[in-house]
This record gives sequence, C-alpha cells and structure tokens, in this order.
Amino acid sequence: MPVNYATPPADRLRPVAGIELGAAQAGIKKADRYDLLVVRIAAGARVSGVFTKNRFCAAPVLLCRDHLARTAKTGRSIRALVVNTGNANAGTGDAGMRDAQSVCAELAGLLACAPDEVLPFSTGVIMEPLPVAKIVTGLPRAVAALATNAWSLAARTIMTTDTVPKAASRRVDAGEATYSVSGISKGSGMIQPNMATMLGFVATDAPIAQRLLDEIVREIVDQSFNRITVDGDTSTNDSFVVISTGDATRGEIDSRTHPAFAAVYAALRDVAVELAQAIVRDGEGATKFITITVDGGRDAAECDRIARAIAHSPLVKTAFFASDANLGRIVCAVGNGGPADLDPARIDIRLDDVMIVERGGRAVSYREEDGARVMKQQEMTVRVSLGRGTAAATVWTCDLSHDYVSINADYRS
Amino acid sequence: MPVNYATPPADRLRPVAGIELGAAQAGIKKADRYDLLVVRIAAGARVSGVFTKNRFCAAPVLLCRDHLARTAKTGRSIRALVVNTGNANAGTGDAGMRDAQSVCAELAGLLACAPDEVLPFSTGVIMEPLPVAKIVTGLPRAVAALATNAWSLAARTIMTTDTVPKAASRRVDAGEATYSVSGISKGSGMIQPNMATMLGFVATDAPIAQRLLDEIVREIVDQSFNRITVDGDTSTNDSFVVISTGDATRGEIDSRTHPAFAAVYAALRDVAVELAQAIVRDGEGATKFITITVDGGRDAAECDRIARAIAHSPLVKTAFFASDANLGRIVCAVGNGGPADLDPARIDIRLDDVMIVERGGRAVSYREEDGARVMKQQEMTVRVSLGRGTAAATVWTCDLSHDYVSINADYRS
Repeated sequence: MPVNYATPPADRLRPVAGIELGAAQAGIKKADRYDLLVVRIAAGARVSGVFTKNRFCAAPVLLCRDHLARTAKTGRSIRALVVNTGNANAGTGDAGMRDAQSVCAELAGLLACAPDEVLPFSTGVIMEPLPVAKIVTGLPRAVAALATNAWSLAARTIMTTDTVPKAASRRVDAGEATYSVSGISKGSGMIQPNMATMLGFVATDAPIAQRLLDEIVREIVDQSFNRITVDGDTSTNDSFVVISTGDATRGEIDSRTHPAFAAVYAALRDVAVELAQAIVRDGEGATKFITITVDGGRDAAECDRIARAIAHSPLVKTAFFASDANLGRIVCAVGNGGPADLDPARIDIRLDDVMIVERGGRAVSYREEDGARVMKQQEMTVRVSLGRGTAAATVWTCDLSHDYVSINADYRS
Repeated sequence: MPVNYATPPADRLRPVAGIELGAAQAGIKKADRYDLLVVRIAAGARVSGVFTKNRFCAAPVLLCRDHLARTAKTGRSIRALVVNTGNANAGTGDAGMRDAQSVCAELAGLLACAPDEVLPFSTGVIMEPLPVAKIVTGLPRAVAALATNAWSLAARTIMTTDTVPKAASRRVDAGEATYSVSGISKGSGMIQPNMATMLGFVATDAPIAQRLLDEIVREIVDQSFNRITVDGDTSTNDSFVVISTGDATRGEIDSRTHPAFAAVYAALRDVAVELAQAIVRDGEGATKFITITVDGGRDAAECDRIARAIAHSPLVKTAFFASDANLGRIVCAVGNGGPADLDPARIDIRLDDVMIVERGGRAVSYREEDGARVMKQQEMTVRVSLGRGTAAATVWTCDLSHDYVSINADYRS
C-alpha cells in the first residue's frame, strides 16, 4: 500500500494534443498483463531526456541518447516512444543493442518514420536477452490501440513491482492560452529487485523551444526524480523524457520572459514532483514518506550530501519504520555526510515542529513524547539547519521495513 | 550467531608484558554486567591511534586526539585507557567534554599519572549525558582488579549489541626474540542501533619506535577495520589503538629493515584483521560473510569505491541473504560505483570459482545451479575484474536480513 498516494482516475488525466498512447499484452514475462506501450508523437515536437549515470547503462538508454543526437543534428524530430516491461535489456552487450534497434526499426515501419526517430525504453530483469519476437508481434496491436485518452492504461502498462500505476496531470492557464501537462512514471526504488528502472514520461502541448526544453528538463529532474531515494541504488535504465507537442511556428515559448513560461514551467515541475514522490510513496515496503531538508549550508551540494547521508542510512530508515525518534542515528548520519569543517555546535535538527537537537546537543526543551508523536505520523519532515550559510537541499525518502527485505529477498526464490 | 567465529578461550590470549587489564560492574546502563574497563600501560610505551572521521565525533575521541598530541609534545607517554560501555558520550557538547575529562582525572589520581596520560573511550547510546558518578564509583574496583591475564574479561566488558566477545592473539618468533600480540574489539556494525562505536585495542611487547608505530597503525587499519562494512555508517566513536610496551632502550624496532619488523608487522596485521572480520561475522542479523575483491583497476581507490558500492547495496545484501545469485544487482552496483570511463565490456565477475559475468554480459558457461551452489555457502568471494589496470581492493561485509531490521527497529521500543 503506497503512503498517501492513489492513482488519479482516468478522466482526470488530460489528453495532450499531439500525443497518442497504445498498449498491448505481448506476454514478455507474464501472460495476461499489459507490458508494451507505444507513444506516437506528432511531427515537429521537441523531445528532451535525462538518463541514468550508471556505467552499466542499458542498450535502450544508449540508443535513446544516440537517436536524440542524430535527429537533433539533422533537424528531424522524435516520432515515437516504445516501452516494454518485464525485461530491462541491460548487461546484454552487442546482442542487446541489436535487439533494441530491431524494435525501433519494426515500430518505425508501422508508423512510417525513420528508426532513429523512435526512442526505446525497457524495464525489468537485468542480464536476460530481450524477447524481441514477442515485442515485434505485440507492436501492431499497440499501434492499433493508439488513442489520446489512454494515459491511465499507459501508466499501468509500464509497471514492474509497483503496486499502483503512477500518473499526474495539470491544466495550465497562461493568459489567453490553455495547455495540458500529463505524465506517467514507474519504479518503487531507484532500482528494483532484479527488475531495474525508474521511468518518467511527461508531455505538454505548450510549444516550448528545443533549447529551452533541454534546460527545463535538467532543472526539473533535479527538483523531482533526482530528489528521491528508496535504497540509494541508481538503476541501469533510469530515464526521464519531456515532450512538447505544441505548434512551434506560432507563439513558441523560447525564453524565460515569455508570458506563459512561468505557468508552464510550474505545471511541468509539479507533475514531475508528483510522479517522483509517487515512486517513494510506493517504495518497496514503505510505510512512511519522509522529507529531509538541510538548510543553512554554504552550498546546495553540501546540503544535498548530508540529506542523502540521512536518507541512505539503514539505521535511520529502520528507526523511522519503528516510529523511534532516535536522535543519535540522525546526528551520526549528519556527521558522516558533512564536510570536514562542519561545526556540530551550530547544528539544529527538527522533526516537523519539534526541536530535537539544538546547537549540536539534545535540545533542552525536547521531550521523548513529542518526538514519538511526530514519528508515529505517516509523513514527516526532518529539518537539519547547519548554521553556516543560506543554501538548502531536500530529498524525499521512505523507511526500511521488514517488507523491503522480504520483497527483495524473495523476489526470485 | 556469528558466521564462523568463536571467541578464543581465555588461556589462548597471551598476556603482553607491560599491560594490565581490570574490569568492573559500574551499572552504567544495566546492572550485573561488566561495563567499565581500565588498561594500565607500563611507563615509556608507545601508543598510536586512528579515530573516526565522523564530524559529530564524540567527546572522548576529541580528548584522545588531544592527549596523544600533548604527551607526544612533552615526551611523556600514555599510561592508561579507560573504556565504558552503555553510553557513547557523543552529541553531548561541552558537558560531555567535561565529563570525559573528569573520568580521566579520576583515573589519573588512582594511577598516579597526569590526566592527559589517560585515553578515554565510550560506546553506547548517543546524546545522553555520561553517568560520571557511576563510572567514578566503579574505577577503584576496576583498578583493584588489574591483571595481565584479563584479556578475555576485557573483551566481554566492552561489548554493546555484540553477541560474542572479540579477541585475538599471536606469538611472534622474530629470530632470538619472542613477542606477544593481543587485542580486543567490539561492534556489530560501523554503527549500532542507537549504540555507536567500533573499538579496537591491540598491544604488543615488541619495542616499536613511535614514528614507525604511527605509520604501522594507519597501514594496518587500512587493511583491517577500514575494510569492513556492515551498514555503511561510520560511528561517532570509532577508535583503534595500538600499544607497544617493549623496552625501547634495548633493540628498538625503528625501521622496516629491522630483523624483527616483518614478523611483528604480520602479527599485528593478522590480529587486527581477525578482530575486524569478527565484527562483520557478528554483524547485526548477519547470516553470511562475504569477501568482495575488485581487481584490474587503474588505482586502488576506484577498486575500493566499486567494492563498497557492492557491499552497501541493500539489493545485493538482500540477495545474499536469500542465497539468490542475482547477477543484475551486482552488475548494477558495479555500474554505480565505477568511474565515468568504466567500460562494461571489459568486466568479468566471479562468485568463488564460478564465472557469472564475462566481458560485461552473462557468462556463456554460467548455469544458475552453479551460482546457487556458491550462494548457499556461509562464506563466499565476489571477484570483479575491471580489465583496465593492476590495482585491487578488498572489503568484507555481511548480508542484510530480517534480523537486521528487527534488531534496529526494535532496539528502543
């Protein structure tokens, strides 16, 4: 059960002009489930992506980067995404690359575009050969199903160990224009049990210029998907893609001073944050959703390192699971993540509104029952104030429960 | 139950000339258990220590560093260690520092030495005031109990959540001379549930010069305690101290070419490795002892980072717990820990003698049953060969089990 998250109903997911989605049951790993998704994109759309930094990145990730570069260089545009679940096509070497190319070529034939105008995504088991024949057989059915209102089924189709589909949508009122932003994501950890991959896809009919879109995508991923951690592992297949379909020949949003920019940017960011947080809320075994904010730092990087040291500490995470306001574990994690010249005597730590550490020691006002009250909540914020500057950073994480061990220990056995 | 570890019997722990140990029940956290240890060191001994890099390091750690510096500057020597369990005196600010100083002063009075000739160590709950009165009351009893053959009780005294005392001993035959090396350690994680601290103390009657001892201690800790990880957290109190009591005026070992050097160095290293590995074997919830070796790297640092990425991945650790030869999780961890220019196509991975990954893909010869056979063992080696150089690094770790979550979630509740 995710922590305070329910998939929006299908009729709350706004169609985006220029985007059609079609799903099929290809039997890639299991029968009788949707496991293959095609997204058709209108000609002329701008597409921008951010991909995993894992050195063992999967064949489809390499191909996505290559296809984005090739189409950009020749002034063409990406015309389709193809996503399969059940197999990550990672650690599969040259054969995996040929398999991903075959899938792109096959879909290109069906959609009358070039193979390098297709971006492929795979999620599932690592180091097993991609069942290309099953995917190729399923593609015509996915294409036949293409529709603008299929966001909900699309979200369900890309799930692996997710317990719920993840989708988000916004209407943007930008002066005279009205736009839609809709997106889907999957993942219940930065990496899953044997299954890999966080995937996120967001589309808008707001006409954003390619150069600006490339900037926005990196900024937004830094404020959303790069802020979450379940278990600290970065998968081989992590991908986040934003598509802007709106007609770029009329009133293109090409700068941050454009009147529609702020509203469109906010909607894209909100959808990405909602999709990213949904992954943590549905994190493997999660029973709590925890916001960790570190402020008063010299720069964002040091705040980020400390926030992640807290979020990744198995001892802190098990304390959250136990609803135990274990100050020492948080303090110890701060001490591990902090820079060499961090002065403990300037550090305050709060659990929601309860001051637990003041100037490096147990807060005089602190009572165990106040900490216990906050720790019993399903959501809470840990705020660490370093007292050495004005920078801040936030990460979202979940607790470490018995179910995390069960899910990951029992997955293949 | 530790993995393949039993404490040596008391009569196998060799006394070290110039070292006496005395324990007492001071009732620091629990009644009826030994929780206070005094180690008296003969005049003129050389003492060298390595301490935690955690920014929130405990008052006793700060005081140890200060006392070592002061005595070195004035040509005096450390005359005693005092160790309490049940309270880490960490995150306790100025009051914690005064408390640690009080303990040193009190023991100095009893032993007729200067307060800064005492090194204090604390392990246990973080952020609670040190019960100085109880410790001061217990000190005369610990001093009255001082004896050369009390290593076994000393090892038991410093335990926190350890399930077994940890001690090791060697006889060194170095030409005409015979020396002893004995040591104790505690810890079942780099940090414990609320309890903090890894502690290690090793003494020898081999007469090692101070300058050489300082070098040796850092080298040895890099080959032993710095090679272990249970949960990736570094505690606020980690300390490792080596004492050389032998008469330095006669035949001091002052260089690596001294005829006794190699044998003494090997014995010190072996004792430290045995004590360090005992901590992993007794790791919280551990059911497996895993050696992770990364070779073929450009430098030891990159090998070390990859080894730790594997050792710290909760997904890899739960796979070991489940005896699941989950190739994808190991590969993914390698990809996370590796440098930006790591070429997956040059990487081989073996589980003991079984090749599982060859040139970045699943090994053609690999059969699931071979992987499963190794994974069922209580001990195994993961060997990652990077194929880009000659450097190597090894870390020792354990699996992540349901008991780890139980121990850490239930500790205070």
